[in-house]
Amino acid sequence: MIQKPSVPKGTRDFLPSEMTKRNYIFDTVKDVFRLYGFQPIETPAMENISTLLGKYGDEGDRLLFKVLNSGDFMSKVPDDVYNEKDSSKLASQISDKGLHYDLTVPFARFVVQHRSEISFPFKRYQIQPVWRADRPQKGRYREFYQCDVDIIGSNSLLNEMELIQIIDDVFERFKLNTVLKINNRKILAGIVEYIGEKERLTDITTAIDKLEKIGLDNVNSELAGKGVSAEAVAKLQPILEMKGNHEEKITRLENILANSETGREGLKEIRVLFDYLKIFNLTTEVEFDLTLTRGLNYYTGTIFEVKAKDFAIGSICGGGRYDDLTGIFGLPDVSGVGVSFGAERIFDVLVQLNLFPDELLKTTKVLFLNFGLKEEMYCLPVVSQLRKHNVNTEIFMDSAKIKKQMAYANDKKIPFVVMAGENEMNEGKFTLKNMQDGSQQLLTAEELINVLSN
Amino acid sequence: MIQKPSVPKGTRDFLPSEMTKRNYIFDTVKDVFRLYGFQPIETPAMENISTLLGKYGDEGDRLLFKVLNSGDFMSKVPDDVYNEKDSSKLASQISDKGLHYDLTVPFARFVVQHRSEISFPFKRYQIQPVWRADRPQKGRYREFYQCDVDIIGSNSLLNEMELIQIIDDVFERFKLNTVLKINNRKILAGIVEYIGEKERLTDITTAIDKLEKIGLDNVNSELAGKGVSAEAVAKLQPILEMKGNHEEKITRLENILANSETGREGLKEIRVLFDYLKIFNLTTEVEFDLTLTRGLNYYTGTIFEVKAKDFAIGSICGGGRYDDLTGIFGLPDVSGVGVSFGAERIFDVLVQLNLFPDELLKTTKVLFLNFGLKEEMYCLPVVSQLRKHNVNTEIFMDSAKIKKQMAYANDKKIPFVVMAGENEMNEGKFTLKNMQDGSQQLLTAEELINVLSN
Repeated sequence: MIQKPSVPKGTRDFLPSEMTKRNYIFDTVKDVFRLYGFQPIETPAMENISTLLGKYGDEGDRLLFKVLNSGDFMSKVPDDVYNEKDSSKLASQISDKGLHYDLTVPFARFVVQHRSEISFPFKRYQIQPVWRADRPQKGRYREFYQCDVDIIGSNSLLNEMELIQIIDDVFERFKLNTVLKINNRKILAGIVEYIGEKERLTDITTAIDKLEKIGLDNVNSELAGKGVSAEAVAKLQPILEMKGNHEEKITRLENILANSETGREGLKEIRVLFDYLKIFNLTTEVEFDLTLTRGLNYYTGTIFEVKAKDFAIGSICGGGRYDDLTGIFGLPDVSGVGVSFGAERIFDVLVQLNLFPDELLKTTKVLFLNFGLKEEMYCLPVVSQLRKHNVNTEIFMDSAKIKKQMAYANDKKIPFVVMAGENEMNEGKFTLKNMQDGSQQLLTAEELINVLSN
Repeated sequence: MIQKPSVPKGTRDFLPSEMTKRNYIFDTVKDVFRLYGFQPIETPAMENISTLLGKYGDEGDRLLFKVLNSGDFMSKVPDDVYNEKDSSKLASQISDKGLHYDLTVPFARFVVQHRSEISFPFKRYQIQPVWRADRPQKGRYREFYQCDVDIIGSNSLLNEMELIQIIDDVFERFKLNTVLKINNRKILAGIVEYIGEKERLTDITTAIDKLEKIGLDNVNSELAGKGVSAEAVAKLQPILEMKGNHEEKITRLENILANSETGREGLKEIRVLFDYLKIFNLTTEVEFDLTLTRGLNYYTGTIFEVKAKDFAIGSICGGGRYDDLTGIFGLPDVSGVGVSFGAERIFDVLVQLNLFPDELLKTTKVLFLNFGLKEEMYCLPVVSQLRKHNVNTEIFMDSAKIKKQMAYANDKKIPFVVMAGENEMNEGKFTLKNMQDGSQQLLTAEELINVLSN
């Protein structure tokens, strides 16, 4: 039976041209991560389902891909449970493992499990696919890569500063104009305290998070709907509408939040970061944005988000400080901070703005045409020599029509072609053709190797 | 609730020291693959279950990791099927996707699906994890990496030759002494024809495959048990025990298989390969091994297997030619040939023989000690400068005890440490300490950058 080939919804194949571009992104971020002393780790694609469940909220639990237990998995399900035919109850009986939903929870699990093998502060990066059973749509996949970089075991703000430098360095290498928005969850906590709605931190930050998307009026309606008092909403307005540079904002907030210890601490932290920033000449524009909240509840201090200036696509990098991510796995009070680069969106932006370097595409430098067995034998030792000189070299695999061989060179964007037929063999030479300008040179093997290995 | 952190049976975390070694393996094979004009592709971890089922035999089907459908998956199961409570029948109803078992079947699916986007012959490599629900044991994992390299769309033996060169090149870079065994399925078919048991090719090759493990007597008993006639077994003996170099074996077999067209063709192919080999000076020993059969049924021509000479661990690389892998997906008669490098076993061999290069471990070149905020501010611009010069540089994130900071440098095997306290700051200099020999130098920022960036 012939099957029409396809991949599951929301997943993708990557062709060589895409792989080369994706690898350019991964290699660039890796180079930068290493420059700052970060080291790679990897965790399995599958985690015990108990490691994943309850870490991403109900919505996250629903979006986990669960792996069916092997063997006669149903035999272990008690009849009374089985008779209910309830998918979610059964899932927990027939699936012990799931595909990881992000790299943060596996990292927290890793840190606790290997705490005696690693030394703290621990600086790691991790680049792997993650899986989410989300409804696929343009730019949203069920299998996609995350590039995470974190320092765990240090509460120094120098770590935040280094992450900002990393962000700057990465996007400078990509030649991408970006704005980095920063805020601090302690400031948000201070604001909520100031408006007298301390208990509603999550509701309020969730609403503020939508400001850009739905506008201030709708945010206010949502706040009122959640039971935030009219007085509190009124007190919040000047804060949400606050203009000015970071210095002006900080000074004004120091007054507003004078009675909130947490708020003052957050402002002190932001001030330290902007002081650090004065030392460096960053390309990235850094903006203190009071409306930046970041959805995830585990953030407790500085939060980051990066946007491309020249292309609207949402955030292309984000993260923040968390004070107790490893607590759930039995290692409390370990502070960490990290950011995650959105490789898929960065890819889209670089494609749209035409920012991928041209030379990425040239994988093979020279193709030897194949005119038959005798000619092949004449060429093979030189092909081999070129490879020893680290020149990516191919010889066409059979003496097909020249048109076909040249089409192969064109398709692969190979910049040089070598031809050696009767005449060349008699002279002990090779014709080197430059595919860009069409020029040809008659060269000895040695000359050929010299020309191509430079 | 505190969870004791662990990973699923048969899966692993990789610490930075392991990652660096693993990346050395992957980077080495990738460099070689590119040198020969191969390009990278990737396919999703999850495939439609129909793509995978029936491709690896019953055993393989059993070992597939199946992914549970999302949502209310049980509601779609008809009551009569549900009431049987049969795990395997239910699995097919509640799981549409599986984790790929190898990279070969996904590659075949990829080639057919993208045939209009790629140009043939298509030379690709693919390095990704695969998943098998096998019983975990020492050296056998449920999640492990495969490194595959294949040419599809050409039946030229030059491709086999290039794969042999790739194998030689890879293991030379690893400084590993290896023997490459080659054989040809057409010769095996010829032999089976010659002994008059043409219909029992699979039974006979399966038995021969065990020769090394169980010995000739047991192979013969197994053959008899499968119904192979005593006469046939007797005729097979001198072939299985044949000694001599490849020339002697080929000549002898040309006589024995004179009446088998398939057998003669296989011998001609082997001869062509050994003729090619004369041109090159390979490090790898190449042996024509009549008892090499390779388990997988899709092989139709040359087959390969590589063993390490100095460490017994089974095959570390293997592959062969297949004439109709893409047929099942609707593209018949496309010949291909490829090999797969066993990264996990190569890792074990390199560890055991101590063949990993030392310098892999040094990720950060220099650590600036942190004596406090003033000193930090003095150092940060130089730290930044060094990174601009592409020197992997760290500054300790807070002014912890010097002992702790030095321990950090030692743990990460950082070869240089920079100290700048009161004295250095007064002089506008930095003390550079070599951690290997303990020597110290007092340098200006410029001198420091010069020394470290060379």
